[in-house]
Amino acid sequence: MFAGQNIRVSPYPLDLIGIFVFAISGALLAVRKNFDIFGIAVLAEVTALGGGLFRDLIIGAVPPAAFTDLGYFLTPLLAALLVFFLHPHVERIQTGVNVFDAAGLGLFCVAGTTKAYEYGLGLTASATLGLATAVGGGVLRDVLANEVPSLLRWDRDLYAVPAMVGSGLVVLCISQDALNPVTSALAAVTAFVLRLLAMRYHWRAPRAWNRRSAAVEEA
Amino acid sequence: MFAGQNIRVSPYPLDLIGIFVFAISGALLAVRKNFDIFGIAVLAEVTALGGGLFRDLIIGAVPPAAFTDLGYFLTPLLAALLVFFLHPHVERIQTGVNVFDAAGLGLFCVAGTTKAYEYGLGLTASATLGLATAVGGGVLRDVLANEVPSLLRWDRDLYAVPAMVGSGLVVLCISQDALNPVTSALAAVTAFVLRLLAMRYHWRAPRAWNRRSAAVEEA
Amino acid sequence: MFAGQNIRVSPYPLDLIGIFVFAISGALLAVRKNFDIFGIAVLAEVTALGGGLFRDLIIGAVPPAAFTDLGYFLTPLLAALLVFFLHPHVERIQTGVNVFDAAGLGLFCVAGTTKAYEYGLGLTASATLGLATAVGGGVLRDVLANEVPSLLRWDRDLYAVPAMVGSGLVVLCISQDALNPVTSALAAVTAFVLRLLAMRYHWRAPRAWNRRSAAVEEA
Repeated sequence: MFAGQNIRVSPYPLDLIGIFVFAISGALLAVRKNFDIFGIAVLAEVTALGGGLFRDLIIGAVPPAAFTDLGYFLTPLLAALLVFFLHPHVERIQTGVNVFDAAGLGLFCVAGTTKAYEYGLGLTASATLGLATAVGGGVLRDVLANEVPSLLRWDRDLYAVPAMVGSGLVVLCISQDALNPVTSALAAVTAFVLRLLAMRYHWRAPRAWNRRSAAVEEA
Repeated sequence: MFAGQNIRVSPYPLDLIGIFVFAISGALLAVRKNFDIFGIAVLAEVTALGGGLFRDLIIGAVPPAAFTDLGYFLTPLLAALLVFFLHPHVERIQTGVNVFDAAGLGLFCVAGTTKAYEYGLGLTASATLGLATAVGGGVLRDVLANEVPSLLRWDRDLYAVPAMVGSGLVVLCISQDALNPVTSALAAVTAFVLRLLAMRYHWRAPRAWNRRSAAVEEA
Repeated sequence: MFAGQNIRVSPYPLDLIGIFVFAISGALLAVRKNFDIFGIAVLAEVTALGGGLFRDLIIGAVPPAAFTDLGYFLTPLLAALLVFFLHPHVERIQTGVNVFDAAGLGLFCVAGTTKAYEYGLGLTASATLGLATAVGGGVLRDVLANEVPSLLRWDRDLYAVPAMVGSGLVVLCISQDALNPVTSALAAVTAFVLRLLAMRYHWRAPRAWNRRSAAVEEA
């Protein structure tokens, strides 16, 4: 609403939960890549805060929330420590982690879209930036780990679409002047449930039609 | 000229053409990397808008044009759809795509240099940022696809040099107080033609002198 | 102290030395990756200026110093030219380069932390951004070269910790109202010496406890 001011768009504890679960996913990848404890901490921070950082740079909300809120900064470190000491146990509850990650996806796409709109972006741009907030951290995580972003790979269950639906519902509510805590929560829950269903039933998106097959399959 | 204001530095239809052809190159790489339709769309958007986004963040033009102009956002999606449905046909006209990409290179280096100067940067910095505008999207494309940026590889035809010449001509015109639509067009066409010649005659840049050869050849 | 204004936080010649040695490390990697002269120049610029660029975007100091100071821009080009023509000789003095790189690390973590604080960030955020200033260029270098950032790898000698100590000392001095040229220099020298010791004695950081070993060793 007021450009240049930090607006809280989702309840603070929810933000921290989203940050925490994203950080866990970053820390787990770091362990799999054989990084040391600093690498684990860096990947946890980047995964958890990267999407919001990108959004804040785009809308001109500097310094970004990641650098002004101590809780945002410390939460990923806590996640990194947990994974560092309890890695096999965290791995064993991978399904649980995935559920939390889906929750983070839902929370972030709603919070990102709302904040972008409050800073004056249009509806389409707000939804796009909400999507980028939700998936940006994971993309940065994979780039730093020198892997093809799992967001882009066809052999992963749908990840972007649930976030798109969540962001889309938020801008729909905005355009109908119906955005409030209840509808925000509904949008986040919808994205969350869609992501759970995508994982449960292995929903995937199509690849380009008529690819000349054999040559590209192993790419 | 007026910092903080969005200034149109090249005719809008030309911008869209440049965005479109860059998006095609991103979408084609996505198909080759076996990405699904969302990966194709993301890579198309990043390739087409990444360079301008970087420039706008550097000069403080937030939110960047990529997020304020719906045409900028939708054009890459159109390119992604075309490649998704017509991939073999688009591949077949790769030469045509390369010609358009060269046109995009020429347009972007001129537009980027001009906009940077209008936001108060010096001549050298403006030319550098114009170069970054022209090649930045392609670098981001390759980083996201987990490949060595083709900009940096010695075994690709000259790409940066034509853009450098275009940006250099623009700042030369500025310093002579001779920048106008005609000289701008001349600079863009010069970059365009140089890139075409580089592709036609496989112009390449030298690698470091006296590299200890065998060991690094396979790197 | 005055947001939006460019404040010189370390003596200019020291800045240029730090930029120069970081640029050398970027150019050397570019030669090893078999890039051409433009790739060498790009990697030199990115390594030398990337960390400060990231910091300036975060604190809203746009356009970043990298684009307003001609010396900052030309110094990496000089380094790139030296490596291009004298590569085997530069390689032979790799130890010397490492010593200079350690000096750059010390200078940049102190300068980055100080500038972040002057732009209004809190103590923790300033130290974090100082660390990011010092190591950010190297991370960008490795990402562009399509390698796992050496910052994150367990099999490299400690790099982040010396910078953390340097940044930590600066914020300690700030909190005690004791930051002055002498204490700044002491912080930079401490980081510098710690890095030298880490290289001399191959100090490394631990990886996650109880990793299921064999499977991940080759990752």
